[in-house]
Amino acid sequence: MSTLAEQIVQTEAHRSIFETAVRQLPLPVCAAFGAPAQPQPVSFQNSGRALSTKDSDAVQKQFPLSVAASGNLVLTSSGPNSGASQGKRVAVLFSGGPAAGGHNVVCGLKRILGAGNTLFGVKAGPKGLLKGNLFEITDANIDFIINTGGFDFLGSDRTKIKSDEQFAQVRETCIKHNLDAIVVVGGDDSNTNAAVLAESLFTGVKADGSGVQVIGVPKTIDGDLQIGDLLSISFGFDTATRIYSEMVGNILQDTSSSLKYWHFVKLMGRSASHVALEVALQTKPAIALISEEIAAKKQSLASIIDHIAQVVVNRSHQGMNYGVLLAPEGLIEFIPEMNAMIAELNDALAHHAAAFAELTDNDAKAVFIGSKLSADNAALLESLPHYIVNMLLADRDSHGNLQVSLIPTEQLLIDMTKQRVKEIDPKVPFAAHSHFLGYEGRCGAPTLFDAAYTYNLGLTAGSLILDGRTGYMATVTGLTTGGMPQAIPLAGLLNIERRHGKDEFVIEKALVKMDSPAMQFFVSRRDAWAASDLFASPGPRQFWGPTTHQLPISVALNSGATSLMFNIG
Amino acid sequence: MSTLAEQIVQTEAHRSIFETAVRQLPLPVCAAFGAPAQPQPVSFQNSGRALSTKDSDAVQKQFPLSVAASGNLVLTSSGPNSGASQGKRVAVLFSGGPAAGGHNVVCGLKRILGAGNTLFGVKAGPKGLLKGNLFEITDANIDFIINTGGFDFLGSDRTKIKSDEQFAQVRETCIKHNLDAIVVVGGDDSNTNAAVLAESLFTGVKADGSGVQVIGVPKTIDGDLQIGDLLSISFGFDTATRIYSEMVGNILQDTSSSLKYWHFVKLMGRSASHVALEVALQTKPAIALISEEIAAKKQSLASIIDHIAQVVVNRSHQGMNYGVLLAPEGLIEFIPEMNAMIAELNDALAHHAAAFAELTDNDAKAVFIGSKLSADNAALLESLPHYIVNMLLADRDSHGNLQVSLIPTEQLLIDMTKQRVKEIDPKVPFAAHSHFLGYEGRCGAPTLFDAAYTYNLGLTAGSLILDGRTGYMATVTGLTTGGMPQAIPLAGLLNIERRHGKDEFVIEKALVKMDSPAMQFFVSRRDAWAASDLFASPGPRQFWGPTTHQLPISVALNSGATSLMFNIG
Repeated sequence: MSTLAEQIVQTEAHRSIFETAVRQLPLPVCAAFGAPAQPQPVSFQNSGRALSTKDSDAVQKQFPLSVAASGNLVLTSSGPNSGASQGKRVAVLFSGGPAAGGHNVVCGLKRILGAGNTLFGVKAGPKGLLKGNLFEITDANIDFIINTGGFDFLGSDRTKIKSDEQFAQVRETCIKHNLDAIVVVGGDDSNTNAAVLAESLFTGVKADGSGVQVIGVPKTIDGDLQIGDLLSISFGFDTATRIYSEMVGNILQDTSSSLKYWHFVKLMGRSASHVALEVALQTKPAIALISEEIAAKKQSLASIIDHIAQVVVNRSHQGMNYGVLLAPEGLIEFIPEMNAMIAELNDALAHHAAAFAELTDNDAKAVFIGSKLSADNAALLESLPHYIVNMLLADRDSHGNLQVSLIPTEQLLIDMTKQRVKEIDPKVPFAAHSHFLGYEGRCGAPTLFDAAYTYNLGLTAGSLILDGRTGYMATVTGLTTGGMPQAIPLAGLLNIERRHGKDEFVIEKALVKMDSPAMQFFVSRRDAWAASDLFASPGPRQFWGPTTHQLPISVALNSGATSLMFNIG
Repeated sequence: MSTLAEQIVQTEAHRSIFETAVRQLPLPVCAAFGAPAQPQPVSFQNSGRALSTKDSDAVQKQFPLSVAASGNLVLTSSGPNSGASQGKRVAVLFSGGPAAGGHNVVCGLKRILGAGNTLFGVKAGPKGLLKGNLFEITDANIDFIINTGGFDFLGSDRTKIKSDEQFAQVRETCIKHNLDAIVVVGGDDSNTNAAVLAESLFTGVKADGSGVQVIGVPKTIDGDLQIGDLLSISFGFDTATRIYSEMVGNILQDTSSSLKYWHFVKLMGRSASHVALEVALQTKPAIALISEEIAAKKQSLASIIDHIAQVVVNRSHQGMNYGVLLAPEGLIEFIPEMNAMIAELNDALAHHAAAFAELTDNDAKAVFIGSKLSADNAALLESLPHYIVNMLLADRDSHGNLQVSLIPTEQLLIDMTKQRVKEIDPKVPFAAHSHFLGYEGRCGAPTLFDAAYTYNLGLTAGSLILDGRTGYMATVTGLTTGGMPQAIPLAGLLNIERRHGKDEFVIEKALVKMDSPAMQFFVSRRDAWAASDLFASPGPRQFWGPTTHQLPISVALNSGATSLMFNIG
C-alpha cells in the first residue's frame, strides 16, 4: 500500500483520478461500424444529393480533379468494406484553436485503420506538416489519450498552407514519410485548406504517380461550421458551451444568493453567437445579446444600452438588484453604426494626422477629431466612455486600422449601462462584475456527446481513407437516431469571398439565423427570463449516471429532435 | 409527450436535467444518526477536551454564561437522544459570501427537527434577522433545494450584529416569532457573531425567562476556518477548489495544446492561500505562489518576479513557451516591502498634499513623491509599471489609505515578468493571459463531499438544539472513518485582535502553515512541476460513478489520511 503522498505523485502527468477513470468509459459506435468493441471500416456510395454554392462554376475550374471525382455528391456508408485497403500510411494533424474531442478523432482513426495500416501524428499543427515532424501513434498512446481534453497529444498551430513553397514542403513530407493520406482536424479555414490540399495532392505525388488523400474533420467550439442536416454541429461546441453554462449557472446562483451584483459575461465567439445562444438556452439569464440580431435590426449602441438599462431598472423595481447578461465576443463588430463611425474615424485620423499629432491632451484630441466627423458619428464617439475614446484615438495597426476586437466589450457595456440606469432612475443601484469565458472551455474533457461524436468521426474519416476517398469532410448524421457515417465533398462547400483585398475560396461561416427554431425559442422566452428569476444551473458535465447523454439545446431544436438526448449506436 | 420546446421550458427555474437528477442522490449519514432514510437526533456529552486561547481569561469575563455552561469543553455525541425536545421553533440564516452546501445544512436541520419542531428560514442574512423577515420551511422546500448550490433559497448578506440597537432588534424578532433557537451558517466572523449572540440571548429573552439557543455552522470557501482535528475544513472549500481546479486543468491542457501562452490565474482567497495550494495540488502547474511563504521568507517583489521569469526562461529553453501560474488574491498584501512602501507613501502624500496637488503630470508626481521616500521604497515604487504607480498615487479611501486589494495582481505579475524575461534572455517569447477565478466557485452544486458533509452538519446542529445546547459550532470529525457529530464551544475559540483601532473578539483565521504536510508535499514537488509538464486535469466534479468520493488533497494530507477518499456513514 502506497502512502498518500505517493498516491498523489501518481496522479501527475494526466493521471488524476478523473482522467484515469474516464479512459475506461466505453464509447458507442454507429451500427454501420459493427460491434463497438471491434469497429470495422465501412465503404461509401454516392447519395443522390449534390452540393452547390453561388460559386460552383468557379470552384469547378479551380478544383477540377476533386469535383470530377466527387461530382460534389454527398457520400453515405454502404455497408462493411470487406476489401478495405491495407498498408496505408496516414498522418493526422490538428489545426487552429483546440476543441474537446480531438484526441478521440485520433483514437477512432487508429482503431479503424487497425494493425494493417500505420497512423502518424503530426506535431504542432500544419507547421509540423511543412517540417515533416511526424511520429507513429501506438495503441498505448490511444489508451492514454482517449476521452481526455485538449490537443496536447499532438499540439496545434494556425499556419495556413497557401504558398507554392508551402505546397512543395507538404509534398516533400508526403514523399519522405511515404504517406497515403492526411487527416486535417480543423474549423472552416482548415477544412478549406484541406480542400486545397486534396486538389493539390490529388495525383502525381508518389513515385508511382498516385496522389495523397486528404480528409477533413469538422472542429470548432464556436459552432459556426454547420451544414444543415449534413453537419448539425462541429465537435467541441458541446463541451465548451457546457463548461461555460456551468460557470454561468454558478454565477446566476450567486446573484440570487448575494442579491447585489450584476455579472456581465463575455463569451468566446467572434464571428457568430452560437455559443452565447446555447449558453442562454441552458441557463436562462436576464439578458443575452445576439450579435446577428443586432446586425439584422441595425440596432444602435444607445438602443442596446437603453434596453439593458431598462431591464436593470425593471428588475430592481421588482426587488431584484442583480442579474446576468451574456454577450458574444464579437458584439461590437456587429453594431453597424460602430463600424461606420470607426471607418470614418480611421479616415479622419489619416487625413488630419499632422494636426492631430500636435495635440497632447486626450480631451482636445477627441474634440478635434469629433469636429471632422459627421454629426451622427461625432455624437456616437462622444457618448463613449473616455477610455474607449482614448483607445479609438490611439491604437492603430500597421494598416491604420483599429482592431475593434480590442475594445473591452463587457466593461463598455457595464459603464454605459451604469450611466443610463442613473438617468432612468437614480435610486436604482447597479454594481457589476465582468467575466470573459474563453480558454477555459476549449480543452476540458469532452462531454460524452463530443467524445462519442469525435470517436465516430475518426472511424468515418479512417473508413473514407480505406475506401480510397479524397477531398471529403467526415460527418456523422442522425445524432438522435443511432448515427450514420457520411462524407461531405469539400469543394461543394466553397464560396468566393473578398478577404484582405483578394478573392479567396472559403467555407462560409454559419451565423445564428433569426428564423431558426433555437433563436425563435429564445425570443419567445427571453422577456420572461428578464422579468423574473427563471434561471437554471445545468451543472458540471457528467460522465456517469442519468444525465450523460445530452445534446446541445440549440442543436436539438434546430435539427427538429424530440428530446435533448443524443443517441449514437 | 411534450414538444421539445415544452421540455426546455420545463427546465426553467432550477429544473435543469442535472438539478432534477441531483435532487434524487442519496446522502450518507454518520452511523450515530441511525438509518440514512430516517436520521434520528443524537444527544451530546462533554469530552475531556477543553479549548483555550491566549485570551481565555478575558473571554470568560465577556462570555460568563456561555463559558460556565460549556466549560469550553468539546462535546461528542453520546447515542440517540430519546428524550429530544419537541415543539421547538428554530430559525436558520446564511451569513456572508455564499458557499456550496448551504442548502444541505438547511435540509439536515429540517430532517432532524422532524415534524415535532418548526424550522424557519431567515431571508437575506443577518439583516433579515434584524427585520424579522422569516418564513416557515416546508418538506417540499427541502426536496427542491437538496444538493443544489448557492444560498439563494434564503439569500445572504454581510451585516454584522454589533450595536445595542441591533441586539434589541434580534430579541424582538425572537419574541415576535417565539423562537427557541437560531442557526448561523457562516465563516469566522459570523461564528464570532454567533458566540456573541449566544451569550446575549443566553437567558431572559422569552416571557418565562428562558433564552434562545445559538448554534454556528462552519462555512467558507477560503478554507481559513480550520480547527485542527476538530474541524479539518469548512464547507464550500471542496466545491470551490474543485471548480477552480477543473478550470485550471482545462487551461493547462490548453497551454500544451496551443504551445504559445502563459496563463496567470488569480484565485479567490485574500487572507489565506489554502485555495491556491489546493488547486496547485490538484493540477500541478509550473508555478504556484503561496502568500504565507512569501511573508515568512520576507520575499521582495523583485525576487518573486525573478523566480517567475527564471522558470519562464528555463521552460522556454526546454521548448515550452507556455505554462500556468497560480496566485492567491491576497498576494500583494503579504509582500512585506510593498506594505512598508505603501505605508510610507500614504504618510508622504498626507504630509506633502499641497505641493503634490499642484502637479498635473503623472511622471512629475511620481518623481516628486519618490523624492520624499526612503531610498529602498523609492526604488521599489520606480520598479512598478506606470499604471500601478498611477493607482498608488491616485486612489485613496476616506482614511487616506490605499486599498492594496485594488491592485490588479495578475496583470502586475505579467507585466513585470515580461520585463524581467527580456532582461534575462531577449530571445524568449512571453505572451500571457490573465484570469480571476472567484465568483464561479461559490455557488456551484456541492461536490458529494460538501453535500454529505453539510447535510451531516445540519443533522448535528439540529441535534445540538434538541439537546438544549447553545454557543457551539457544529462539526463532523473523522471524515475518512465514517464521521462523528461533535460540537466546538465557540467561546473556546475566541482571541482578542486589534481591528479598526479597537480590541475585538475574533476567531483566528487559519493560514497555510509552512510545516503542514500539504505545504511540505507541494514544496517537494514544485520544482519538478516547473521543470516539465507534469500537470493533471482533475476534470469536472462527478456525482455518479467511480470518482465521486474525493476529499480535498490538502485536507487529506493535513489530517494524515491514507487515501483521497472520504467516508461518511
